Amino acid sequence: MLIHVPSVERLIEAFRRLPGIGKRTAERLALHVLSAPAELAETLSDAVRDARSRITTCDICGNLTEANPCTICADERRDHSVVCVVERPAGAMAIEKGGTYRGVYHVLHGVLNPLEGIGPAELKIEGLLERVRRGGVREVIVATNTTAEGETTALYLSKQVSALNVAVTRIAHGVPMGGGLEYTDDQTLQRALEGRTRL
Amino acid sequence: MLIHVPSVERLIEAFRRLPGIGKRTAERLALHVLSAPAELAETLSDAVRDARSRITTCDICGNLTEANPCTICADERRDHSVVCVVERPAGAMAIEKGGTYRGVYHVLHGVLNPLEGIGPAELKIEGLLERVRRGGVREVIVATNTTAEGETTALYLSKQVSALNVAVTRIAHGVPMGGGLEYTDDQTLQRALEGRTRL
Repeated sequence: MLIHVPSVERLIEAFRRLPGIGKRTAERLALHVLSAPAELAETLSDAVRDARSRITTCDICGNLTEANPCTICADERRDHSVVCVVERPAGAMAIEKGGTYRGVYHVLHGVLNPLEGIGPAELKIEGLLERVRRGGVREVIVATNTTAEGETTALYLSKQVSALNVAVTRIAHGVPMGGGLEYTDDQTLQRALEGRTRL
Repeated sequence: MLIHVPSVERLIEAFRRLPGIGKRTAERLALHVLSAPAELAETLSDAVRDARSRITTCDICGNLTEANPCTICADERRDHSVVCVVERPAGAMAIEKGGTYRGVYHVLHGVLNPLEGIGPAELKIEGLLERVRRGGVREVIVATNTTAEGETTALYLSKQVSALNVAVTRIAHGVPMGGGLEYTDDQTLQRALEGRTRL
């Protein structure tokens, strides 16, 4: 039986360390990898190792990249005077998919969380302030999440950046496009009402 | 941006080949692997390669195993006269977790599916019949799934094994333990009624 085979248990444990993968899913993935032609396992193993060894964080914005600086920071057609601050690379990826944002990014790699001992020094905040101090930045858009930690971080950044006489904005929060009021939670509705704009 | 980085796209594609992993999940997994300490990627890469290279299929029952024959086929305390036929290794794993089955297994590695060109020769059916012909088997329990293909396969096996004068049984289908009638689908209820037993 596979349950007590060490190499399989290590594989299941490795899958379980990925986000959103529980015990059952990890077992299913492991069984698939072991049942499928060996090529699938080799491709996956190589892809994980290869991508992880090639990818680094951009010295300027902290986003994940192969080149350094990243293609966005190196792109002269982007507007380098507008910096969008996100918690993680996934946030920048999500905005980039929209295809309309022409500014650049700054990835914090986390949010302020005093309970877990994460203060400004643990995040890429000094790098952001340094970019602003160096000049050329006219607006910092804070796109941290709407969690308590994300909001705290937004407030902290707002004070720090404002002190350098650069505009700080927060992305709008409200009812999602196509989302009906009846499917929207209380807090989002409250934000949507507070953030109402004139037609 | 990571979307057009070849090594990352290969990683996302590799994750997408796993069962139940769509585009968004694959992207999330890839971003996690790339953001987390390199040790996570190395562990995963090694675990996939190592497990796949160690695991083979048992020459007797076709189940996935490191040893050959597998620990179940090699276990003299198991009842080798009862053979439970499952579609895939996951089925044997599920039954084995129950911890009460003392017989052995036979893994078909699929089900009959004429539309996809999968006939008896594409499955490990001849191996099963050979085991039965060799003698010592008194019962074959068919535990293929309750899909049309699983039922067709069960019927086919029933005819082939019966012709060798060995008993063929089908696992019971009915209302799951702890499942209320109101949450049970029509077909399962019908099966549960047809398969009623005297109290």
